[in-house]
Amino acid sequence: MAEGMEAHGWAARDASGHLSPFNFSRRVQRDGDVTIKVLFCGLCHTDLHVIKNEWGNAMYPLVPGHEVVGVVTDVASGVTKFKAGDTVGVGYFVDSCRTCESCSKGYESYCPQLVQTSNGIDLLDGSTTQGGFSDVLIVSQGYVVRVPETLSLDGAAPLLCAGITVFSPMVQYGLNAPGKHLGVVGLGGLGHMGVKFGKAFGMTVTVISTSPDKREEALDRLGADAFLVSRDPEQMKAAASTMDGIIDTVSAEHPVEALLELLKPMGQMVIVGLPAKPLEVPAFSLVAGGKRVAGSGGGGIAECQAMLDFAGEHGITADVEVVGMDYVNTAIQRLERNDVRYRFVVDVAGSNLGVSD
Amino acid sequence: MAEGMEAHGWAARDASGHLSPFNFSRRVQRDGDVTIKVLFCGLCHTDLHVIKNEWGNAMYPLVPGHEVVGVVTDVASGVTKFKAGDTVGVGYFVDSCRTCESCSKGYESYCPQLVQTSNGIDLLDGSTTQGGFSDVLIVSQGYVVRVPETLSLDGAAPLLCAGITVFSPMVQYGLNAPGKHLGVVGLGGLGHMGVKFGKAFGMTVTVISTSPDKREEALDRLGADAFLVSRDPEQMKAAASTMDGIIDTVSAEHPVEALLELLKPMGQMVIVGLPAKPLEVPAFSLVAGGKRVAGSGGGGIAECQAMLDFAGEHGITADVEVVGMDYVNTAIQRLERNDVRYRFVVDVAGSNLGVSD
Repeated sequence: MAEGMEAHGWAARDASGHLSPFNFSRRVQRDGDVTIKVLFCGLCHTDLHVIKNEWGNAMYPLVPGHEVVGVVTDVASGVTKFKAGDTVGVGYFVDSCRTCESCSKGYESYCPQLVQTSNGIDLLDGSTTQGGFSDVLIVSQGYVVRVPETLSLDGAAPLLCAGITVFSPMVQYGLNAPGKHLGVVGLGGLGHMGVKFGKAFGMTVTVISTSPDKREEALDRLGADAFLVSRDPEQMKAAASTMDGIIDTVSAEHPVEALLELLKPMGQMVIVGLPAKPLEVPAFSLVAGGKRVAGSGGGGIAECQAMLDFAGEHGITADVEVVGMDYVNTAIQRLERNDVRYRFVVDVAGSNLGVSD
Repeated sequence: MAEGMEAHGWAARDASGHLSPFNFSRRVQRDGDVTIKVLFCGLCHTDLHVIKNEWGNAMYPLVPGHEVVGVVTDVASGVTKFKAGDTVGVGYFVDSCRTCESCSKGYESYCPQLVQTSNGIDLLDGSTTQGGFSDVLIVSQGYVVRVPETLSLDGAAPLLCAGITVFSPMVQYGLNAPGKHLGVVGLGGLGHMGVKFGKAFGMTVTVISTSPDKREEALDRLGADAFLVSRDPEQMKAAASTMDGIIDTVSAEHPVEALLELLKPMGQMVIVGLPAKPLEVPAFSLVAGGKRVAGSGGGGIAECQAMLDFAGEHGITADVEVVGMDYVNTAIQRLERNDVRYRFVVDVAGSNLGVSD
């Protein structure tokens, strides 16, 4: 194998959750590849699970990061979609089999051979993929999306994972209709994107949270129309059968029966969080009202481009705290206790990647 | 209130689950009403729950029965859809508010004011509705459907509840597509209808059961394409990710995680049974494959007519054991232990309703 491009990133070496400088090589460009200088990369909860090996599949050294915004610096032969200087994004996967039913329909994220951007295995050479907390990425053009010029690039980075994760099921399940009533459960990286997209779709948006403290930020900062404290049975009862759909972004264990009661007949609840214990779903809660509980794990490339185009038209970005790479270990600790409004984004291009904290 | 038509039926008087002869009055025909001589009425599990007051809402004396096939004997002024001599059916509801979102969309079964055929409360006069285990019914024409002449009337009766309960979600969720693979969990009144509709839709149908003994009847009697023993991990693993949809008809407690594994990405499982304990649904099982779990509780009137028309075209009826009313208490006991292939139907018109067993 020809020697690839020198790359500088920050990697986890073990399950401690600590990142430090790491030099490695990117593959030599293949036909159809795009080389991207990374500008910004968001820090997602999934990164924490992976680097700490909580899912038992970590391959160290492991460069996390899958919410990438960057600029194209080079294209290989066969690239038709992009040219040097284009502002682009890469989400949580960089390849798939391209032939299965999911790939054929544009739902690549459900391909059984999906290659994750970080801690994945390249389908062609078997190498381990390294993520966006590094200065350069090389990705096949079919897995790169265009970032609208109107968006701030730091705030756009989380759209590549948090954004598409809520946007995809909202569109797929018809929770993007003006005048419909959307409930958003949990107000973190995913939830705050749900509120923004819901309002941009012209919906009435109610934030549902265990914490009464979040009322002000939900209504005033994010523009939600209403706020429900899920632990207040009176409030929940008063809102029964009022919602067309709910996006549940909570990864902590929580009861879903009370949430299902909020749905109108034939309403849909979309699960995008990952509580460790099974959800307890009473059959009667589903059957009596013809309700649905759907899971969604991201979206396809075409959906992601549609999401970015929509975000560009409506000026939607994530609310972010931009930090240097030398702050990433602190950011990881703060993210673990949900101490961020609402997403850390590392200014990769503005960081000295060779210097640890 | 003018005195209504004399009616003879069999009613439960208490929670013992025993029926006995009962004389009562039907309402005077209102504008738009159809008077129906009951010919056949199916015995559904729901009847058992209601007469034994397991849902705590029984109003005795209580005439069960909501899978009715009969012949029109009289119509009131304003009736345009039916005339005397028409063969018609009545399902598990006989009225609804007619104005709510569900009613407006033709999904009357989810109307919050739904009037059940038996043990319901009439919206206009507050009287208790009495079901199809009686010689006559009076129903507003909008809640009566036409039964195709090509169908055997005894086998058609269970279409009015068991049939529509599986047909409606199959159509609504796209589990009616030729070449798609449908799993049917449980082989009772609902499950055997799921197999018949699935085959008529041109689908590949796999029956999933805890009981290996049901293989022969699934394949040979009902024409399923394959049979899976849900307690055999090897069989289940071999069938992973092969099904586009699953209809789960089981009301006993059972694990659903293994069933979700059978679905392809973006596959859908429809729950039509009512296990008492909540379903345990791992979030990961839904999120990783973008899968859905939907409940369905029957169908609307237009859907029910479409189901009957489809059944007529394809010669679909339930497999029934036809009994006289004097056998109904034995039938109730046998149904409680699932000792029927697959539905008891009472020959109401052929029974002497005044004589108890």
